[in-house]
Amino acid sequence: MTSASPRLGLLGRLTEIMSGSLPHPFDPLTAGEIELTAAVVGRAHGNVHFHVITAQEPRKAEMMAWLANPSHYSRPRRIAEVVVVVPRGKVFDGLVDLQSSHITKWEEVYGEQPILIVEELLGLEKACRKNAKVIEQCVLSGISQDEMHKVYADPWTISHDTRFGSGKRVHQALMYFRPNVDDCQYQYPLDFCPIYDPETQDIIAIDIPKIRRPLQRNKAINYHHLAVQEQGGYRNNLRPINIVQPEGVSFSVTGREVNWQNWTFHVGFNYREGIVINNITFKDKENVRPVFYRMSLAEMVVPYGNPEPPHHRKHAFDLGEYGAGYLSNSLALGCDCKGAIYYMDAYMPTQAGTARKIKNAICIHEEDDGILFKHTDFRDNSTIVTRARKLIVQHIFTAANYEYAVQWVFHQDGTIQPDIKLTGILNTYVLNPGEDTLGYGTQVHKGVNAHNHQHIFCLRINPCVDGPRNTVHMVDAVPSEAPVGSRDNLYGNAFYAKRTRFTTTGEAATDYNGDTSRTWDIVNENRLNEHSGKPVSYKLVSRDVPRLMPKEGSLVWKRAAFARHAVHVTKYADDQLWPAGNHVAQSSGEPSRGLSEWIGDGTESIENTDIVLWHTFGITHFPSPEDFPVMPAEPITLLLRPRHFFSSNPVMDVPPSYSITPSEVASGKGSFDATDRVSKLAVNESCCNSRL
Amino acid sequence: MTSASPRLGLLGRLTEIMSGSLPHPFDPLTAGEIELTAAVVGRAHGNVHFHVITAQEPRKAEMMAWLANPSHYSRPRRIAEVVVVVPRGKVFDGLVDLQSSHITKWEEVYGEQPILIVEELLGLEKACRKNAKVIEQCVLSGISQDEMHKVYADPWTISHDTRFGSGKRVHQALMYFRPNVDDCQYQYPLDFCPIYDPETQDIIAIDIPKIRRPLQRNKAINYHHLAVQEQGGYRNNLRPINIVQPEGVSFSVTGREVNWQNWTFHVGFNYREGIVINNITFKDKENVRPVFYRMSLAEMVVPYGNPEPPHHRKHAFDLGEYGAGYLSNSLALGCDCKGAIYYMDAYMPTQAGTARKIKNAICIHEEDDGILFKHTDFRDNSTIVTRARKLIVQHIFTAANYEYAVQWVFHQDGTIQPDIKLTGILNTYVLNPGEDTLGYGTQVHKGVNAHNHQHIFCLRINPCVDGPRNTVHMVDAVPSEAPVGSRDNLYGNAFYAKRTRFTTTGEAATDYNGDTSRTWDIVNENRLNEHSGKPVSYKLVSRDVPRLMPKEGSLVWKRAAFARHAVHVTKYADDQLWPAGNHVAQSSGEPSRGLSEWIGDGTESIENTDIVLWHTFGITHFPSPEDFPVMPAEPITLLLRPRHFFSSNPVMDVPPSYSITPSEVASGKGSFDATDRVSKLAVNESCCNSRL
Repeated sequence: MTSASPRLGLLGRLTEIMSGSLPHPFDPLTAGEIELTAAVVGRAHGNVHFHVITAQEPRKAEMMAWLANPSHYSRPRRIAEVVVVVPRGKVFDGLVDLQSSHITKWEEVYGEQPILIVEELLGLEKACRKNAKVIEQCVLSGISQDEMHKVYADPWTISHDTRFGSGKRVHQALMYFRPNVDDCQYQYPLDFCPIYDPETQDIIAIDIPKIRRPLQRNKAINYHHLAVQEQGGYRNNLRPINIVQPEGVSFSVTGREVNWQNWTFHVGFNYREGIVINNITFKDKENVRPVFYRMSLAEMVVPYGNPEPPHHRKHAFDLGEYGAGYLSNSLALGCDCKGAIYYMDAYMPTQAGTARKIKNAICIHEEDDGILFKHTDFRDNSTIVTRARKLIVQHIFTAANYEYAVQWVFHQDGTIQPDIKLTGILNTYVLNPGEDTLGYGTQVHKGVNAHNHQHIFCLRINPCVDGPRNTVHMVDAVPSEAPVGSRDNLYGNAFYAKRTRFTTTGEAATDYNGDTSRTWDIVNENRLNEHSGKPVSYKLVSRDVPRLMPKEGSLVWKRAAFARHAVHVTKYADDQLWPAGNHVAQSSGEPSRGLSEWIGDGTESIENTDIVLWHTFGITHFPSPEDFPVMPAEPITLLLRPRHFFSSNPVMDVPPSYSITPSEVASGKGSFDATDRVSKLAVNESCCNSRL
Repeated sequence: MTSASPRLGLLGRLTEIMSGSLPHPFDPLTAGEIELTAAVVGRAHGNVHFHVITAQEPRKAEMMAWLANPSHYSRPRRIAEVVVVVPRGKVFDGLVDLQSSHITKWEEVYGEQPILIVEELLGLEKACRKNAKVIEQCVLSGISQDEMHKVYADPWTISHDTRFGSGKRVHQALMYFRPNVDDCQYQYPLDFCPIYDPETQDIIAIDIPKIRRPLQRNKAINYHHLAVQEQGGYRNNLRPINIVQPEGVSFSVTGREVNWQNWTFHVGFNYREGIVINNITFKDKENVRPVFYRMSLAEMVVPYGNPEPPHHRKHAFDLGEYGAGYLSNSLALGCDCKGAIYYMDAYMPTQAGTARKIKNAICIHEEDDGILFKHTDFRDNSTIVTRARKLIVQHIFTAANYEYAVQWVFHQDGTIQPDIKLTGILNTYVLNPGEDTLGYGTQVHKGVNAHNHQHIFCLRINPCVDGPRNTVHMVDAVPSEAPVGSRDNLYGNAFYAKRTRFTTTGEAATDYNGDTSRTWDIVNENRLNEHSGKPVSYKLVSRDVPRLMPKEGSLVWKRAAFARHAVHVTKYADDQLWPAGNHVAQSSGEPSRGLSEWIGDGTESIENTDIVLWHTFGITHFPSPEDFPVMPAEPITLLLRPRHFFSSNPVMDVPPSYSITPSEVASGKGSFDATDRVSKLAVNESCCNSRL
């Protein structure tokens, strides 16, 4: 589903770029800009492997000035960030000014490893199949030498292994077998774990567990159509549900700026986070009010809970180590999305520096969303009912076995809902007949052990709630301190919202509390709601907030400092984007990179200033047979809700389906009737058989 | 939206019933049965006021026997429960055998008050408008005598007031004003509170607060169409989203039994809970497996957090005191639901014993539900993507100011999702200019104070997971006890699911724990999953689980014992349906009725037996101006998920939108393509203006 664009020379690319209109500073690099960057770097440094070619985030001060007054301030320069590996494994971070075609930064990186790239992922399996020691292990597992083409290897980050540290670049191979090329390999795991050197493209070690678990050639269970058709076929009792928008959609897209139902925002995309939403504003009557400067999923980690080597080191940072952009699917109309869909393509660099196109990497569409509001007066049945709709900006990425469908959902009432669905396939390991999982996994199918794990996400929010000077308050629902029966609490019912105002980064590192329905408000204290007198705010309402299961001091705890608390707040700084550090692969966590470094001793002020809220949420997954061989989507969601932001309900002017007032009921005249006439009564034979 | 059915004589009703086929034992009373019951009671006891005429739940032992073998066991008898108030206020509980037309139970109830009925609700406002002392208070508030038709009274349960106790039936009136008949009254609250005697239909007291707060005649803010049209009109940028099912729906209804995607269940309805789902089974390959015997929202309470009299007593049990069935809306096609909709009507008794029809009280429809599962192999882009749909059984009820849309959502993968949307209007009180809410409320509009409150629901689940002998386990995700670096936990990543098995009702009274992502499993220990070796189960996954804010010992805490913990488990007993007691109105909580009585000393065994799980969940609501004058719907949801119930993913035979295997990718031949061709690319002028 990806295709390379034809490679042009440097001059060709330059000409192409200069002749077109300049991209918006928030736009991802174009194919031309990617290849220009590669050409500039190639000219200076020869044949290198590109791990990253991406747009540098515009410096915020410049960007804010330009956004506010584009004719007066100069447009932020277009700059590409690169990370390359040169022969013999040295790593360099660089910057290329795309307007001048000059390299403006070129620094060697010591003891850190850049993000994994597709070419490495594909190379590992080849290396495994032809390596004599891997073949030897396969034979020991019960695979004959002429079956080596049926051996598959999932390329995994090694997390951190003290044998190799952070300096020697290595990946681990999780091994599987496919009796038939179409078989789901995750039902045939192998028990050993080769270590791959991407520089030499060879296997340099094999981790062999103490307990051996040979391949079990059990009867296959598959989810693809050939298998289902063989086993009785598909159910035939689903009649189509068609979603049609005969007059087109209700949003518009200019460049990458989306406009819908008072919302305006820019849809960015990069190799690491996938979708980035920038410069989110909401038009409140005639005022265009800023809400968030930038929002994205900035990191995630999937710690597994089995301490048996080599599983003890299994925890992938799917964004920092693989990249949600790099792993993004090409979405298909009528499959991944229904209705009237707007797509955006993405361009990612190849190892060689060409641009790889991911067609339809992002989809944007509207959905009906049930009832927006309703009220009926019991006295006379005067009523109003108004339907809601939502706008969804989605990408889906495949991280080896798992898929993540990430939706940024915008609601008409000013709510933003980041929404993730997990599907795909469990990571699995072989279990000997009669063996106990010791509580660290579940036998989801005969001989298949799926280990306990968590999916921990980090949402990065750089707010701009009515301007860049914001503060975070923690809000807990608590009973009054006054005793039951006392003058101030006669019936004992009194309760209130207890606010804790964060003044420093140290104070802001806080956990979830389900008892008090804890929420966090992003507040602009400089602007009070005209009615409530409270500062305008956006409230973070998030309920899927498990604690990090790996213990304090564990490798995951050290490497994923963001996961230690549900909320961290830092003062905004350019380039503080990645909460587990810039180069995550093989990081030791000593010291913890990223968020932990920025917070330091926790004394920095975060009052009434440009801040970033880092929110950690996710799920803890104890697998079960229902999840195998492919997992029905599991939802995780949270809300960012306007509170004291508007002076009243902002959706009263959404046309209702039906509205009739008391006076109209009484007079028998009038009403507003925009009932959807397309809806029908469901009548079928069985329905008519009703005994009522 | 309701209409009375013509009244037939006793003989007419009897003839009608005998000539038709007998209703299913789970069916609500038909109109004929309601009127037959009233006639039987009327013949024996003269002119009484009917507060309840409802089908008695079939005795479970009889029902289970009959369901298992209807030709061998006798059909449970059709019995009506009645609650009546006779002149001079005496209350009687009765049973009427509908096959013999005999009263089989007639017991006076002492010191308890039956549920409020529509006729009482409507009577209170009339009484207020003509009462001299109420008029006096209105005048004091700044209303002239000739404006009394603009004075409105919301009829509220008094909760419990020691002046009247439980013996004297009274209601309280929350007072409002409407300058114009179409104005939203909740923006014009009055400060005093009349007490109404429904027996005499008169006002017997008025509670007058110490601080007086006269009516504020501020400029109106309204949400109805006339107001919006006057203030600039509706937004005109929403283009239609049509949901069409050209071949009809994928479910069938026989009587009230619904069949959809392996699910079969009976949809009941009663005055109190509204929808009741009975006898839920799932067809797993060829086996029809029981899952739940009965599921419903059995109670709710809305405690308000302001201790200032008379608000200190404000907490409504909307089900036990008003009845979700009694308050149900008639749903409208294309307004409350879109697509192809199946409706069921409901019949409720009037005070006089006639049947009142609520047309379209229940709607049933399917919705597309995004991606059911997806996986792509990164090696060759072989892929499968399958769309989900869900079936929704919905009713909506109006509790004075609030509306609750209750959806019972069935998913193809065996998950059941009770889902509630809150909308409607905040309960409000007047706030003097410059007055502080003291943290117990929010000024949501000029002069309008909306008090802090909670919506606490109690879900009653009588499981039958592969049979009636079930046990509840509490599951907490916890790190291994082994220290980081120890042999058993080298990298510190080990974690597992800690199970606590409930053996007694006392042990089972447990709270939510967000830290451990606590869930509760309803387990059948007699049946193990063939792969995992773990007992088949349904997992309760619920995250909106605030603690009850009213303090221990408070009136709410005493009356709503169910709300003290997130989970209670009892042994099943016929007639243990209402967790806050049978007659909730004016209950003192001394002793606590219902759940608290049944649990007693907590020693009853709940192991491997027929059990009921009572789950308390909800939200804590600190109002904000966005919620006024009408509230955008706020969602609450939870999941009941099959875990270790199926031997593999149960939805693999749902036809995918698209599936292609590695061999098909390699050969270039084949694939399963059922892509929805109705979906279109969204192309509009702005879209074409893209700079990319």
